[in-house]
Amino acid sequence: MSAQHPDPVVGDLSEGAILRRILARLAASHAEVGPGDDAAVLAAPDGRVVATVDTLVHGPDFRLAWSSAFDLGWKAAAVNLADIAAMGARPTALLVALAMPDTTRLSFVEDLASGLRAACDELAPGCAVEGGDLTVSDTLTIAVTALGTLDGRAPVLRSGARPGDVLAVAGDLGQAARGLGVLFARFTDAAGAPRAVDPDVLTPAERTDLAVQLRPSPPLGLGPVAADAGATSMMDVSDGLVLDASRLAAASGVSVLIDSAALGDDPASALAGGEDHALLATFAGDVPEGFRVIGRVVERTGDPVLVDGEPHDGRGGWDPYRDWDARTG
Amino acid sequence: MSAQHPDPVVGDLSEGAILRRILARLAASHAEVGPGDDAAVLAAPDGRVVATVDTLVHGPDFRLAWSSAFDLGWKAAAVNLADIAAMGARPTALLVALAMPDTTRLSFVEDLASGLRAACDELAPGCAVEGGDLTVSDTLTIAVTALGTLDGRAPVLRSGARPGDVLAVAGDLGQAARGLGVLFARFTDAAGAPRAVDPDVLTPAERTDLAVQLRPSPPLGLGPVAADAGATSMMDVSDGLVLDASRLAAASGVSVLIDSAALGDDPASALAGGEDHALLATFAGDVPEGFRVIGRVVERTGDPVLVDGEPHDGRGGWDPYRDWDARTG
Repeated sequence: MSAQHPDPVVGDLSEGAILRRILARLAASHAEVGPGDDAAVLAAPDGRVVATVDTLVHGPDFRLAWSSAFDLGWKAAAVNLADIAAMGARPTALLVALAMPDTTRLSFVEDLASGLRAACDELAPGCAVEGGDLTVSDTLTIAVTALGTLDGRAPVLRSGARPGDVLAVAGDLGQAARGLGVLFARFTDAAGAPRAVDPDVLTPAERTDLAVQLRPSPPLGLGPVAADAGATSMMDVSDGLVLDASRLAAASGVSVLIDSAALGDDPASALAGGEDHALLATFAGDVPEGFRVIGRVVERTGDPVLVDGEPHDGRGGWDPYRDWDARTG
Repeated sequence: MSAQHPDPVVGDLSEGAILRRILARLAASHAEVGPGDDAAVLAAPDGRVVATVDTLVHGPDFRLAWSSAFDLGWKAAAVNLADIAAMGARPTALLVALAMPDTTRLSFVEDLASGLRAACDELAPGCAVEGGDLTVSDTLTIAVTALGTLDGRAPVLRSGARPGDVLAVAGDLGQAARGLGVLFARFTDAAGAPRAVDPDVLTPAERTDLAVQLRPSPPLGLGPVAADAGATSMMDVSDGLVLDASRLAAASGVSVLIDSAALGDDPASALAGGEDHALLATFAGDVPEGFRVIGRVVERTGDPVLVDGEPHDGRGGWDPYRDWDARTG
């Protein structure tokens, strides 16, 4: 026991003591029953709840040499909030399952909680952490469940795109992938192991890309806006534009044509990169403000996605079961 | 790639291929939007949703030498379903975040899915897995989010016990702890490492205890029954009767008197043991069928819990941040 230490490890504290410190960093609950009972009780005003879960695992999904605890909390929230917004819904609550080595410092857990809160405040105002779970693990793992409300809207599925629709996107494409490239190119040692980031050696553009990789800030309020504007399909771009667009195309039974000239100065990163969590949507009519047109939907051809009229070579994103290598990351 | 192998490892398969095999083992979705989109859309018929998350981590929470994949899926579901029932609610959906080494066999994942389904079918009919997430991790980890509905009831909190109430329990107390004792006493090698269970060397009573440890089957339908009968407080017993009763007492600002003679043949296990996930409740009036009285609620004394009038020595349960030892388990 070393409870007198100014920054003790969690293994020296009770679960209750850790929870109290986490709760002090979070926004006040606005639920009927918030943290502290067997379960939370949350409003579902239109009689439905939108629900998703996504996990970040140390190693495959983040590196502590590169991500601060605040970054990690932010990103764990953001990727899940994006999935709620991509249904046309408004996030209302997070549940956070945190599994961590008992050598984890209490300050780390507090900063992670602060990152969760900051992401909610910036990306989904009104959404708060309303429950969770703490366990011991050799591998730092954070599984976040996000809940949301459609406020009476019909959910916007991946399967509703129809020939003649335009394809549009809201938010960055490619920046997070470039940021990951900066990390691997500039902040690994000769053996390929991650080493601490020194922002002073980076250009302003590189710093921006890195910030998007570590703390993605997609315009999630545009999810409900797209739904209200009649989006026929929508998803968030987490695994790369081409891969995710091919999933949307497959679900809808259509093909998608992407115009690389609409993808900015670095179309290669935009096509292949994921993790920006931009919102990809199709519209039969006008495209709402905040979305930009990047292509269109046609009858199904042999390929689900064509870029400038050609099949796009290679995979367009990240599949954890194929891409993870414990040695090289 | 070894997709031709009759039981490939998940590292040789795409996430989509694994998901298809999992979905084949699960019950059909009854959600407005089930698995496969960015998020699920679930009914919340009374305008509220009850939500909880709990994680099982290989090492601290289970050992693969002792638990089959089916056991693991069952238990991961059961512990979360119990938290929903303990609010007086009916479970409606699970979201499952599974992080696993890429050397995990596909058959393991399928059997885990079968265990999740079987636990829902037996403990909470109508509840199904409606979403989830697959990631790579060096540490097998399963985080389950359970959602439920109160069907218009008021939630039963931990904080509502009042002096004069009786204390009652539904379900086993102590069997799971005895089962864990069997595992550590009988199925470890000289160095303390787990080894495979041989049921043939066990007595029928030991086999029953072990089954409760590996596949707890609390009477969760009694959660809403207790709520309808006017339970003033309720929680599930996951960390030991004395520890959990002390939490209920603290939340309610009362003390709880437990009569060990009401705890069956092995009161020591009943008092200290957790993981049966029995429902512990207080009632001001009649106790509904399925609950048995084990004590009563009094004005707060110096001790939150007294057993046969005396403070109960030692901790009554499991605190993961204090009890886990990677060497001995």
